Amino acid sequence: MKTVGILGGGQLARMMILAGAPLGLRFRIYDPSPEACAGQLAPLVNGQFDDLAALQAFAGSVDVITFDFENVPAASVAALSALRPVFPNAGALAVAQDRLSEKRLFQALGIALPAFADIDSLATLQARVAEFGMPCILKTRRLGYDGKGQFRIRSQADIGAAWQALGAQVDAVGLILEGFVDFDCELSVVAARNAAGQFVAWPVTRNWHVDGVLSASLAPCGLPAAVQERAVAHARAVAEHLDYVGVFALELFHCDGALLVNEMAPRVHNSGHWTGDGAQTSQFANHLRAGLGLPLGDTAVLGVACMLNWLGQMPEAAPVLAQAAGFWHDYGKQPRAGRKVGHANFRTDDAPAMARALQQVGQALGREAQVAPLLDALSVA
Amino acid sequence: MKTVGILGGGQLARMMILAGAPLGLRFRIYDPSPEACAGQLAPLVNGQFDDLAALQAFAGSVDVITFDFENVPAASVAALSALRPVFPNAGALAVAQDRLSEKRLFQALGIALPAFADIDSLATLQARVAEFGMPCILKTRRLGYDGKGQFRIRSQADIGAAWQALGAQVDAVGLILEGFVDFDCELSVVAARNAAGQFVAWPVTRNWHVDGVLSASLAPCGLPAAVQERAVAHARAVAEHLDYVGVFALELFHCDGALLVNEMAPRVHNSGHWTGDGAQTSQFANHLRAGLGLPLGDTAVLGVACMLNWLGQMPEAAPVLAQAAGFWHDYGKQPRAGRKVGHANFRTDDAPAMARALQQVGQALGREAQVAPLLDALSVA
Ligand SMILES: Nc1ncnc2c1ncn2[C@@H]1O[C@H](COP(=O)(O)OP(=O)(O)O)[C@@H](O)[C@H]1O
Ligand SMILES: Nc1ncnc2c1ncn2[C@@H]1O[C@H](COP(=O)(O)OP(=O)(O)O)[C@@H](O)[C@H]1O
Ligand SMILES: [Mg+2]
Ligand SMILES: [Mg+2]
Repeated sequence: MKTVGILGGGQLARMMILAGAPLGLRFRIYDPSPEACAGQLAPLVNGQFDDLAALQAFAGSVDVITFDFENVPAASVAALSALRPVFPNAGALAVAQDRLSEKRLFQALGIALPAFADIDSLATLQARVAEFGMPCILKTRRLGYDGKGQFRIRSQADIGAAWQALGAQVDAVGLILEGFVDFDCELSVVAARNAAGQFVAWPVTRNWHVDGVLSASLAPCGLPAAVQERAVAHARAVAEHLDYVGVFALELFHCDGALLVNEMAPRVHNSGHWTGDGAQTSQFANHLRAGLGLPLGDTAVLGVACMLNWLGQMPEAAPVLAQAAGFWHDYGKQPRAGRKVGHANFRTDDAPAMARALQQVGQALGREAQVAPLLDALSVA
Repeated sequence: MKTVGILGGGQLARMMILAGAPLGLRFRIYDPSPEACAGQLAPLVNGQFDDLAALQAFAGSVDVITFDFENVPAASVAALSALRPVFPNAGALAVAQDRLSEKRLFQALGIALPAFADIDSLATLQARVAEFGMPCILKTRRLGYDGKGQFRIRSQADIGAAWQALGAQVDAVGLILEGFVDFDCELSVVAARNAAGQFVAWPVTRNWHVDGVLSASLAPCGLPAAVQERAVAHARAVAEHLDYVGVFALELFHCDGALLVNEMAPRVHNSGHWTGDGAQTSQFANHLRAGLGLPLGDTAVLGVACMLNWLGQMPEAAPVLAQAAGFWHDYGKQPRAGRKVGHANFRTDDAPAMARALQQVGQALGREAQVAPLLDALSVA
């Protein structure tokens, strides 16, 4: 019986444990916080992600290591990799930790993406904004997530404000400027690859963000098969180039039939949470199967599936559970403004049944605005 | 956030934890063994089931109590019920712990069942065998499971042998004689009821036993709707009579269109394990929803589902996981002859796809005999 060590003990680790226990796996969690919610289901070791001695001791107590948090310092990952198999590998993690290096990889693989430029000073920023035109977005290269570490530049005055907000971080985490994409919709490919080279992808997911944070996902996305195949081919090219093992997500913008890749996440991903109830195999199960050298499971969506994210605090469960379509996911966290505390999944045989379920849930929870874009998309489907 | 206490820490408790964590529940396990496999996922308190002081301390540390082991002594259940809500209730548990009292209940509710008689001596046994004819089965009234505590009487000589084997237990656990049913097939109704009286049942499951232990299950069972409705109506009558809260199973024999009830299990049940991957809502999730006063989830089977039990030691996982249809359930136990150590579930859209998957798995694992009855049933479906 193998023990999997997970660096980071949030909801992603928690859902990996729930998917991995039936495979006969045991888990140990490493996280700075004694409150890490995965610690409700497995032994929790508290330590900082740059404490090499503590990480090495942790590695000694497990058979294989993975992540629910991708921003573990490269030196820590290198130290762990010397002791135990780590998936995804250190190189893949390093690329995905840095917006600039992942964009350069996409470019090298011939994948279309928005205009971007490395920013090292206010002068460079001014020059690049002039070149790209407005709006555009200044982002930290490293450590950004859920729209954090971003500043949208809409006017000449915003340039100084953006530098004011993020310029101090230029040495610590780097900065990147991106052209703003006026997208029709956002998509993600959640995919898995194992060391034998088996590659599978779930149906392309359509995603809606509010204030830079995922609000809702829907699968299948309803776009033409050719577009979806292109998106999956991009994901496959990235995975093969990185010799990637495990699950990852590739986020894309869709505009007028064109696909522009935004970023990759080297881990199970919020936009793949629907797979926990709406696909034959979940992203959590396939991530572990990949890392343990097991065959990857079927990624078919069982009809129509979607997800609503719960931020800040959990709504009432009963209106979701009263729907035949509804599934509840409470991460066992304390409420806190903006925090990802849970989600609801929905699975139905067809789009009209999904629309009915979502309309009722939206009304019952007073979340009409959150379900509205899903209802729009389903009415077209 | 509520904490559910589970008495008994085997695979049923383990699967309840996996289904309950997404509902935001925490768990504590009470079991005599420090090796209890549910202890891999929740704090484990070791104690005997008749240690009232230890049980009371355990009750004080949880919000609500349920069971993965139904043979907790009545006095213990009473002591716990005085401190915390317990589901199913003590009365239901008491009836289901005793083959004689459950049979009397079935009789009182007008449910057909095999001939039976309370046996208090060798003389009564001889008289009743003469009355029922052979074959017939002598069973302990209490504490039997997986065919244990049973003796089949096929000849005059077997009467003495049966008394030899079980007579010494007549005072401790009681004995019952049953007429042997030459059934066409075995069925079970797995159903759930909550305190508000909501009742749901999964599609009737067909089961195959080997040496008194469940070997395989299939849903839907393929019998006419009228037969299935009758079986579910029996389950509903029993649940309503007992004011039952939680999941239970009713085992039935089917002979020539007639249904004879065998026994009930006051807990989630091995014949409902397929619901974990093959139904919209699993038996484990609905058991907890019922006990916590949440709406019960949809019990539809998603196409065709079946289960193969693994006894003694786990086979190789890869041949099952290589099937798009396959799901793996390793209980994290040490191997031991006859022990339930895991199961595989399978889900497909239709019967031919299921037959193909099972044939390949049967061959790959050298378990052609275990899948043969499923293949027979699927070829008729
Ligand atoms: N270049 C862009 N053009 C348009 N919208 C963008 C752009 N970059 C980010 N966004 C919006 O902000 C969201 C979060 O930004 P992203 O780069 O994905 O960072 P994070 O790592 O926080 O997910 C995106 O999903 C998208 O909605
Ligand atoms: N009266 C009977 N007639 C025919 N078979 C029986 C009878 N009683 C038990 N069996 C067989 O033995 C199996 C186990 O017996 P059961 O009474 O269900 O006890 P347990 O509590 O061990 O499940 C049944 O599933 C059935 O296959
Ligand atoms: Mg993103
Ligand atoms: Mg039985």
